[in-house]
Amino acid sequence: MTAAVSPLAPKVIPDPDPIAGVRFAVTQAGVKYKGRTDLMLALLDPGTAAAGVFTQSKCPSAPVDWCRAVLPTGMAQALVVNSGNANAFTGQAGAEAAAATAKAVARAAGCPPEEVYLASTGVIGEPLPAGRITARLDAMAGKAGMARPVDAARAMMTTDTFPKVAEASARISGKPVRINGIAKGAGMIAPDMATMLAFVFTDAAIEPAALQALLERAVRPSFNCISVDSDTSTSDTVLMFATGAARGAPLVETASDRRLVGFRRALNAVMLDLACQVVRDGEGASKFLTVSVTGAKSARSAKRVAFAIANSPLVKTAIAGEDANWGRVVMAIGKAGEPADRDRLVIRFGDLLVAERGARVPGYLEAEGAAYMMRDEIEISVDLGVGKSRAKVYGCDLTKDYVAINGDYRS
Amino acid sequence: MTAAVSPLAPKVIPDPDPIAGVRFAVTQAGVKYKGRTDLMLALLDPGTAAAGVFTQSKCPSAPVDWCRAVLPTGMAQALVVNSGNANAFTGQAGAEAAAATAKAVARAAGCPPEEVYLASTGVIGEPLPAGRITARLDAMAGKAGMARPVDAARAMMTTDTFPKVAEASARISGKPVRINGIAKGAGMIAPDMATMLAFVFTDAAIEPAALQALLERAVRPSFNCISVDSDTSTSDTVLMFATGAARGAPLVETASDRRLVGFRRALNAVMLDLACQVVRDGEGASKFLTVSVTGAKSARSAKRVAFAIANSPLVKTAIAGEDANWGRVVMAIGKAGEPADRDRLVIRFGDLLVAERGARVPGYLEAEGAAYMMRDEIEISVDLGVGKSRAKVYGCDLTKDYVAINGDYRS
Repeated sequence: MTAAVSPLAPKVIPDPDPIAGVRFAVTQAGVKYKGRTDLMLALLDPGTAAAGVFTQSKCPSAPVDWCRAVLPTGMAQALVVNSGNANAFTGQAGAEAAAATAKAVARAAGCPPEEVYLASTGVIGEPLPAGRITARLDAMAGKAGMARPVDAARAMMTTDTFPKVAEASARISGKPVRINGIAKGAGMIAPDMATMLAFVFTDAAIEPAALQALLERAVRPSFNCISVDSDTSTSDTVLMFATGAARGAPLVETASDRRLVGFRRALNAVMLDLACQVVRDGEGASKFLTVSVTGAKSARSAKRVAFAIANSPLVKTAIAGEDANWGRVVMAIGKAGEPADRDRLVIRFGDLLVAERGARVPGYLEAEGAAYMMRDEIEISVDLGVGKSRAKVYGCDLTKDYVAINGDYRS
Repeated sequence: MTAAVSPLAPKVIPDPDPIAGVRFAVTQAGVKYKGRTDLMLALLDPGTAAAGVFTQSKCPSAPVDWCRAVLPTGMAQALVVNSGNANAFTGQAGAEAAAATAKAVARAAGCPPEEVYLASTGVIGEPLPAGRITARLDAMAGKAGMARPVDAARAMMTTDTFPKVAEASARISGKPVRINGIAKGAGMIAPDMATMLAFVFTDAAIEPAALQALLERAVRPSFNCISVDSDTSTSDTVLMFATGAARGAPLVETASDRRLVGFRRALNAVMLDLACQVVRDGEGASKFLTVSVTGAKSARSAKRVAFAIANSPLVKTAIAGEDANWGRVVMAIGKAGEPADRDRLVIRFGDLLVAERGARVPGYLEAEGAAYMMRDEIEISVDLGVGKSRAKVYGCDLTKDYVAINGDYRS
């Protein structure tokens, strides 16, 4: 296991001020890790609207069950996140640990438990020592506002190699509003699995139903278009909170409101930024991969082909080996099972045209492909030649470090 | 890249006599490799029935196109297979190379081109130097019968570490018939991808339509239930030939004929044996994995869950690391998206009960799980608790050698 920061990490970690109406506290609760923060509390001003999207897993964690149950209130006053234990596949005891945590948060925050959101990330199947969390909450509530978004991001890390923070601003009816978000990505602690958590905050005033619609749309081209290893976590959670604390920002009631044009763009940018940071910190990743598919019968079909390429172990190992192995791209397109015309396929690596009309282009030089593959950021573009739909997804290479991180740590 | 034989190879490579009515020849054609056989010709007695199943890839190779086109005749007199070049994604030139090869085989064998079957395995996207093949065919036809099945299997190898041969016998109406088969598995030569080829021969007398039905049924629980790396080849081909040369064996006209009970069992055994040998020679494999799923809503659902487990990079790396990481099995079940009840799941490693009713069983000892994972052959059993259907699939672990074989060979 490498302790070094990912070679694909941003050069500078963003450190925005908290959003008005959001106060963070972090602490060392010792859920599992020692000598580092592992618990984050966010207190949200009364009246904050909440939205959320969760893992599609049929075996969701207890905190995911909890969030799904309270989300219909549409309101939030607190969010608490621990690292070191995912509270997943922990049965009735896990559900009770989640409820007890929420109750203690509610008491500390002075709000109903239905306005408390929970997330946990770390080992699966171990009972969550909820007492270590609840014992800290009163003190954390007293210190709320003393931590910054980057501190909150750091407390959620498992084996992430850098904290993931993004920010943007926009205007609604001319009034400035801010958005910032934090995320954690693929991390590993024995015996454990990757989980993805992201939390986005804004001081805009947006009704819960509108916020939910905005979040669901923003998730599609960002978090729903990334893959590190094709393994879906039990705990994936993206929550968004709108405090409405921006001065003079009007209350917006529908997601399609024209005043949100700039806000939607800013939100999409924050979400895509966070999602790509998660990929950049993918376990063992040494190359960032963008796959663009055009000429598909439908957007769904384009996305399936794009993921078939981005998730193919043979494509991913070729990228790790800096091998412009376009034959494996053909293979991945073929295995996707989506409409495609072998004899009209166009394949590019960056701007380099590699194949068209069912065969390698005359004059293609292996040396040019090899030179392109030395880059940190690889783009593979495919035109399927059967329609007008498109998709873009983001992934990374498959290296020996991925196997080491996930296989060697017990040896 | 390791040149050593897979640790999962059979202790003894089977070396059966050819099936009556089948005569093999092999040669060094120099398609790509030097100093080893790379071309195999099988001459089949006139009247031999043929059946075939092919890759589901939307980008099939030229030989797959050829075989699909001639299969409706139901008859075969020759099969020619080369290694070193897959003749895939080679456009019109590839189709012409396949047709020219078939024509030359037909001339050498004295049969119509429609009774010639082709397969190619190796590099994708390179034009096939068909002349190197056609120049050898007359000499090979003259020597037909001088090579054995194991020689034919060896000529098809790419980076397979051992030739894959299986045999069985049965009785039809009391008359003995034989079956044998050869296969090649996941191999790698730069820039290349895995392909899977298998050929099964019997001296039973079976009508083409019945043979096709038998083959399609036998493929389901064997070749369609294995995965090395979830990447589907452009060239996967399983062909079966029935020469009818067994003395006194009656001509069977339907696959459901009761006289075939023993034959079907023998055929299934040969197919499963070959399929598992392909897995045992999976690139970098150090552990053979069987995943059994029971209690599913449908057989299709059971198979999807089983493959979600067998193909999960996190499950596969855990097995490589000898880590009884059942939390990742829960994850894989969850991501399959099939009906399952988290709170009724039962998970076993071998006979060891690990989890039930949505949580780890009380008294489960990590040490027992860890001891089990030291074995070469790992069985993971899952009961989904929602129905009565089942599936069993076969896979292998994901090791650093897999990444090395597929990523490092250019560096």
